[in-house]
Amino acid sequence: MAGSILGEIFKISTWGESHGAGLGVVVDGCPAGISLDEADIQVFLDKRKPGETKYSTPRKEEDKVTILSGVFEGKTTGTPISMLVENTSQKSKDYSEIAKVYRPGHADYTFDAKYGFRDYRGGGRSSGRETIGRVAAGAVAMKILEQLGIHITAYTKQIGPFVCRKEMMKPENIEKSPLRMPDLDRSEEAEGYLTDKMNEHDSVGGIVECVISGMPAGVGEPVFGKLDALLAGNVFSIGAVKGVEIGAGFGVAEKSGSENNDEFYMDAFGNIRKATNFAGGILGGISDGDDIVLRAAFKPTPSIFRSQKTVNTQGEEIEVRIKGRHDPVIMPRAVVVVEAMAALTVVDRLFVGMSSRMDKIKEFYMD
Amino acid sequence: MAGSILGEIFKISTWGESHGAGLGVVVDGCPAGISLDEADIQVFLDKRKPGETKYSTPRKEEDKVTILSGVFEGKTTGTPISMLVENTSQKSKDYSEIAKVYRPGHADYTFDAKYGFRDYRGGGRSSGRETIGRVAAGAVAMKILEQLGIHITAYTKQIGPFVCRKEMMKPENIEKSPLRMPDLDRSEEAEGYLTDKMNEHDSVGGIVECVISGMPAGVGEPVFGKLDALLAGNVFSIGAVKGVEIGAGFGVAEKSGSENNDEFYMDAFGNIRKATNFAGGILGGISDGDDIVLRAAFKPTPSIFRSQKTVNTQGEEIEVRIKGRHDPVIMPRAVVVVEAMAALTVVDRLFVGMSSRMDKIKEFYMD
Amino acid sequence: MAGSILGEIFKISTWGESHGAGLGVVVDGCPAGISLDEADIQVFLDKRKPGETKYSTPRKEEDKVTILSGVFEGKTTGTPISMLVENTSQKSKDYSEIAKVYRPGHADYTFDAKYGFRDYRGGGRSSGRETIGRVAAGAVAMKILEQLGIHITAYTKQIGPFVCRKEMMKPENIEKSPLRMPDLDRSEEAEGYLTDKMNEHDSVGGIVECVISGMPAGVGEPVFGKLDALLAGNVFSIGAVKGVEIGAGFGVAEKSGSENNDEFYMDAFGNIRKATNFAGGILGGISDGDDIVLRAAFKPTPSIFRSQKTVNTQGEEIEVRIKGRHDPVIMPRAVVVVEAMAALTVVDRLFVGMSSRMDKIKEFYMD
Amino acid sequence: MAGSILGEIFKISTWGESHGAGLGVVVDGCPAGISLDEADIQVFLDKRKPGETKYSTPRKEEDKVTILSGVFEGKTTGTPISMLVENTSQKSKDYSEIAKVYRPGHADYTFDAKYGFRDYRGGGRSSGRETIGRVAAGAVAMKILEQLGIHITAYTKQIGPFVCRKEMMKPENIEKSPLRMPDLDRSEEAEGYLTDKMNEHDSVGGIVECVISGMPAGVGEPVFGKLDALLAGNVFSIGAVKGVEIGAGFGVAEKSGSENNDEFYMDAFGNIRKATNFAGGILGGISDGDDIVLRAAFKPTPSIFRSQKTVNTQGEEIEVRIKGRHDPVIMPRAVVVVEAMAALTVVDRLFVGMSSRMDKIKEFYMD
Repeated sequence: MAGSILGEIFKISTWGESHGAGLGVVVDGCPAGISLDEADIQVFLDKRKPGETKYSTPRKEEDKVTILSGVFEGKTTGTPISMLVENTSQKSKDYSEIAKVYRPGHADYTFDAKYGFRDYRGGGRSSGRETIGRVAAGAVAMKILEQLGIHITAYTKQIGPFVCRKEMMKPENIEKSPLRMPDLDRSEEAEGYLTDKMNEHDSVGGIVECVISGMPAGVGEPVFGKLDALLAGNVFSIGAVKGVEIGAGFGVAEKSGSENNDEFYMDAFGNIRKATNFAGGILGGISDGDDIVLRAAFKPTPSIFRSQKTVNTQGEEIEVRIKGRHDPVIMPRAVVVVEAMAALTVVDRLFVGMSSRMDKIKEFYMD
Repeated sequence: MAGSILGEIFKISTWGESHGAGLGVVVDGCPAGISLDEADIQVFLDKRKPGETKYSTPRKEEDKVTILSGVFEGKTTGTPISMLVENTSQKSKDYSEIAKVYRPGHADYTFDAKYGFRDYRGGGRSSGRETIGRVAAGAVAMKILEQLGIHITAYTKQIGPFVCRKEMMKPENIEKSPLRMPDLDRSEEAEGYLTDKMNEHDSVGGIVECVISGMPAGVGEPVFGKLDALLAGNVFSIGAVKGVEIGAGFGVAEKSGSENNDEFYMDAFGNIRKATNFAGGILGGISDGDDIVLRAAFKPTPSIFRSQKTVNTQGEEIEVRIKGRHDPVIMPRAVVVVEAMAALTVVDRLFVGMSSRMDKIKEFYMD
Repeated sequence: MAGSILGEIFKISTWGESHGAGLGVVVDGCPAGISLDEADIQVFLDKRKPGETKYSTPRKEEDKVTILSGVFEGKTTGTPISMLVENTSQKSKDYSEIAKVYRPGHADYTFDAKYGFRDYRGGGRSSGRETIGRVAAGAVAMKILEQLGIHITAYTKQIGPFVCRKEMMKPENIEKSPLRMPDLDRSEEAEGYLTDKMNEHDSVGGIVECVISGMPAGVGEPVFGKLDALLAGNVFSIGAVKGVEIGAGFGVAEKSGSENNDEFYMDAFGNIRKATNFAGGILGGISDGDDIVLRAAFKPTPSIFRSQKTVNTQGEEIEVRIKGRHDPVIMPRAVVVVEAMAALTVVDRLFVGMSSRMDKIKEFYMD
Repeated sequence: MAGSILGEIFKISTWGESHGAGLGVVVDGCPAGISLDEADIQVFLDKRKPGETKYSTPRKEEDKVTILSGVFEGKTTGTPISMLVENTSQKSKDYSEIAKVYRPGHADYTFDAKYGFRDYRGGGRSSGRETIGRVAAGAVAMKILEQLGIHITAYTKQIGPFVCRKEMMKPENIEKSPLRMPDLDRSEEAEGYLTDKMNEHDSVGGIVECVISGMPAGVGEPVFGKLDALLAGNVFSIGAVKGVEIGAGFGVAEKSGSENNDEFYMDAFGNIRKATNFAGGILGGISDGDDIVLRAAFKPTPSIFRSQKTVNTQGEEIEVRIKGRHDPVIMPRAVVVVEAMAALTVVDRLFVGMSSRMDKIKEFYMD
C-alpha cells in the first residue's frame, strides 16, 4: 500500500489534481459480470459535488464521469475499469497569489519539503477534489456489496458540540438535512452554529459515523490484515481526518471488562448473536456478523477567510488572507468519501477471504 | 498488506501461536551494515514480558530471542533476518476447558466462523503473544531510526478516568511507574483504581500515547500512503485497540479552523516551524518536521474472572468463568508494541521516500 | 504483482481495450522534477504505431497521447501521471463475425473460460493495443534512465531462419530496416521470407534482443527480486512471447563451467570487469556493471488469413477464416514494448535498491 | 514482489544462509483445514538433499524440517506456517580462503557491490541452500494442488548434448536415473559425459522440463498477472537459470502461424480441446486446460576445481582454485526446486482467480 494505489485484490489507482485536465481512477481486480454504467457512478459523485447548499463552496463543478474501459454491453468484463472526470470550472488565477505562501493547516509546506516544488493550483493533489477517484471506485465496490446484501451508510454524527441522538437518527433524514445529520433537531442547531462561524470567517469540525450492515461473520485476517485496522487506516487516509474509532472507540478507556464485553446468545433462528455491540462488529480483526460501526473525526476546514500568520517560500514571515471558494464544513460532502473507503476495504477483504479454507476452495474448483 | 506480512520495502512476516513451538518474525528489506545482536532485540522484548509487576500475569515467560539469519560478524548483511522466541512455559491444560466455548470479547467465535476450527490453546494466533514478532522486528527498526536521529517513546496516558497531566509527564518517570504512566501521581491513583477492579475480578481500559521526535519534514506520500493513515492503520492492528487519533484527534470536532490551524514561523536557525502542533506533526499525510503525536485507545482485557453468559460451539447458551493467568490491564505491556508499530511504519516510509525526487536519485547513483 | 498493475515503487496501472473509448496508464511513484511532455511519450508510441510499412497492419491509428495529471510547468510533480490514448479508427463491424468463434492461438476461449464472456471486439484487452499503456509508461522510465546514463536498445535479432550476425549489427541500422533488424543483409533476406509467407496468407515468428548499457553494479535483490528474474517475467508478460533468455541463455545447456564462467580482471581505470559476458550482465540476480543482454522469442501472429479448424461458443466444430487487418510479423513493433518492459523493471529495481545499505541511507537523510 | 517474499495471496517469506544457524520459510495465506505434517515436507526436501549419488556433493546435510507454527491437531489453521531446517554440517573453514576472492560465475562481486560486504561462508544467501525455503513452501503448495487434482512433475530433459526423446520418457524412470533423466539411455550417455567433465575438474549445464497437468481452464490474469509470465519469472529466480520457455518456446522463431496455431476441437465428452499443444497450455496468459509445459536452462555449476583468473577484494588480479564440495551438475537436485516454484505460482493464481466472476462470488458468499 503506497502512494495512490490501494488494495490487494480489488485494487484502485487514483490520479489527478484540482486544476489539471481532470481526475480519475483505474479499478483493477473488479469481477466480470456486474451491471455497471455511468449513472451508477454519478449518483455517488453527485453526493460529493459542491454547490448544492449554502454550506458548501459555490464553485460550479459538474463532475461528470466517463467510463473509458472495462465495461462491455453494460457489464464489467473483469479487466481494468478506467473512469475520468474532466476539470471544467477551475479558475487558476484565484490561486496565483498563494503560489509562494505556506497556508496554515494545508500541505503546501510539506509538499515542498518532500518534492522540492508543488502544483499550487487549488492545492494540486492535496485538494479535496482528489477524493473523486475514491468515490468513483467506491461506487463500483458498492455495486458488488449490494449483490451480497451488504449496505454501507455514513452521515454526519456531530458538528461542533452538536451530537446526533441515537434514538432520533433516522436513515431517511440524512438527505433531508443540508448537513447530512440524521437527527434533524441537532442538524438545525448545527446550522445555526455553522452560520455564526461563517459570519466570523471561520470553519467547523465534526464527526462522521459509518455503519456497515449485512456483513457475514468471518471477514478479515489476523494480524495485519484485520478488518478494523484496514478500515481505520483507509478512512484515515481521507484528508482532514484526525482520528478513527470503531465500536465503543475511545470510550473503552473508562470502561471495565465486564462493561465492555459483549455477551453471546442464540437468536430465534439458531444464529450466534451478541447482546450488545461495543466491539463494533469486529472481534480479533474478523467480522462477527453484527453491524460494523466506525467514526472519523474531521478537522475544521483549514481554508478560513481571516488573516493568519505564516511564512512564504522565501522564508519570510507574512500574513495571509485566503480568498477563493471553500467549504466552511467538510463532513456533509465527506460522508460519501467515508462510505467509499469502507466499501473498498470490505470488498477487498471479501475477495482475499475466499481462499481461507480448503473445503471451500475445493468446492469452488471441483464442483 | 494482508495477513501476517507488513510493509512495502522494510517488510516483516510474523508467525506463531501462544502455545505452539514458538513465535518469530522474518525481516526482509533491512539495509546492510547495521550493528545488531540479540541484546538489541531482547531489551524491547523484555518490556513486553509478563510477570514483572503485580499488574501483569504471573506467567513466567522467558521470551529469549535467537537471531537465525541475516547477521554476519555483528552486522546486518541486507538479507532476511529471522528471529525466533521459543515457547517454554505454556500450560495447555489451563485452556482445555475453553476449547468449546466462545469467550466474550475474544476472537474464538470469529476464528471458527472464518477458518472452520481454531487452535484454542491460549488464544492461538489471536493471543497477545503474537506481538512478540512485532516487537522483535520493531527493535530492528529502532536501530535504524537511532542512526537517523529519530526517537520513539510511548507510555500509558490514561487508565480509567486517570489522565496524565502534560506538565507532570517526564520521560524518566515511565519506567518508575509500574503502569508506565509518566505522571507519577496519576499512576498512583490509577494503581488504586486498578486494584479495586482486580478485586472485583474485572479489568480496565486506557490510552497509550506515542511521540516520534526528530522526524525530517517530507516523509509520507499522498494519497493512500499518508504517514498518519499508515501509522493509524498499523497501530490499529494491535489487538484490543479500538481507536487511534493523531494531534488534536477527536478534539477537532469542537474546534474552529482559527483555533485548530497551526501558524508557521521562522525559528532562530532559519527553519520553518509551527507555533502549535494540533496537526500532530503531519500535514497532508506528510511529516512537517514537528513531533508526531499519536494516541491509541485499548479496551479492557476481555479475560475477566467473573461468570459471563455466552454460547458454546454446539450453539448452547452457557455461563463461562475464565481461569488461567491474564493481565488485568493491557497498556503497560502494550507500550512497547505501539513503539514497534510506529518504528516499522516510519522506517518503511523513509525508505519509500528515497525515490521522491530526481535530483536526489541522480546524486545517489551518479556521485 | 497481479492483473494490470506492475512494480513495487515505480508502479504502473494500465487499462483499455482494442475497441473501447481508449487506452492508457497511470504511473504512480514517478519522482518529482523530471522534464516531461507529450512529445517525450509520443516518440515511443510512434515506434509501435501500425501502418508505417507494408509489414504492419494498414490500420490507421493516430495513437496521440495526452498527459492528464502529474506534470506541472513542464516537470513531473511526484504525483500520479495519467496518460490517455483515444481509440479513433476502430471498426467494430470487422469483428462481429468472430464474436462467437474461438480463434486458434488467441485468448478468446481462455477469456470466456475465466470471465464467462468477453469483449470480442478486436481481442478486447488481449489485443496488442494493450501495450500502449506499457510503452507510454516505459517512456517515462526511459526519461529517468537517461539522466542516470543508462540506455536501452532492442531490435529484431531473428526472423524465421534469418539471424543477425553480431559483427554486422549496427545501432544506426535499426531504423533503416523495415523489420528493425540491424544486420541489413539479413533484414533483406527476412523481407523475402516474410513476403513469401504473406503471399501464403501466413505469418512468421522471431526473436527480439535487448541490451541495457550503463548499468551500475549492485542492482537487483536476492532471492525473488533478482534483476534477471524480474526482467524475464516482465518481458514474458508481453503477448506472443514464448521464451526469454539472458546472456548465454539456452546455450548454457551444452557448455561446461570452464567455458561459461566469465573471468574477472582489472581495467585500465581500476574497475573490476569481466573478460567475457556469458552471464549477460547479471550474477546472482544482481547487475555486475556489464551490458545486460536479453532475448525474447515471439510466436508468429496467430491471426492468419487461411481457413483453420476450430470450435465456436456453442461447442460446434467449424472452420474460420480471419478477416480484418493484422500484422504478419510482431517483432518490428514489439521492439519498443520490450524496451519499455526493460526500462520499467530497471527503474523499479534502482528505486528499491536505494535502501540497501545503512551508510547510504544515513548520508541521504543526514547530510 | 521483492527480496525474499513472493506471492500475492499465498505468500512465502524465505530466509537463511548456507552457514548460518539454519534456513527456513514462513508461508502466509495457506488455507485452513489441510492435513500437514513434517513428513509431507521432508519428502520434497530429501529430493534436493545432497550426497545421494556420486554426481552430487558428498557433503552430509540432514536437512530435517521442523514445523513451528500454523498446524494444530494435524491440520493447517489458516495462520502462518513457519518451517525451520537447522544447518548442522557446515564447515566454515573450507571457505575462509575465498573470503577475499571474487569467484568467476558467482555472486561474490555483485553482493559486495550492492551491500558493501558479504557473508562469504559457502556463498551465504546466494548459496543453493537458499532453495530449502522454496522447496518447503512448495511442498505445502503441492498438498493444496493434490486436493484439486493438479499434478506437477519436473525432470532433467537435457545434459550437455544429450536430450531425452519424447517417446522414451516415462515418469517412473525419473527416480531410476541418478540424473533424474526419464529417458534411461540418454541418462546413461549423459552419465558418461558428466564423468568425463568431472575428471577434467569441470561441470556441465542442461535443461529441466516441468509439466503441470490437471489444470482447469481460466487461471491467470491479463496483463502482468499472466500465468506464463509469473511461472517464467518465478522459475527464473532459481539460481543458475539463464532461460525459460513455455510450449514451443524459442522454437517459435522458425515457425509460421499455420504451423504454430493449435486448432480447437470437441472431445468425446463435449469438452473443448486443442489438437496440438504448441501453446504449452496457456493462451493470452490464461490456462487453457491442457498440460502446461515449461523448460528452464541451467548453467554449469560455476564452482569448478580448475585454476581460474579473477580479482580479489583489493582489486588485484589473481588465480583461484576452488576447493570444498560442489555438485558438478545442478539439474538433478534442481528438479524439485522447479516443481516448487511452479506449485507456488499456480496456487497463488488459483487463489487470486477466485474473485474473477460476480456470479461465483455471489454463490460463494450467499449460498
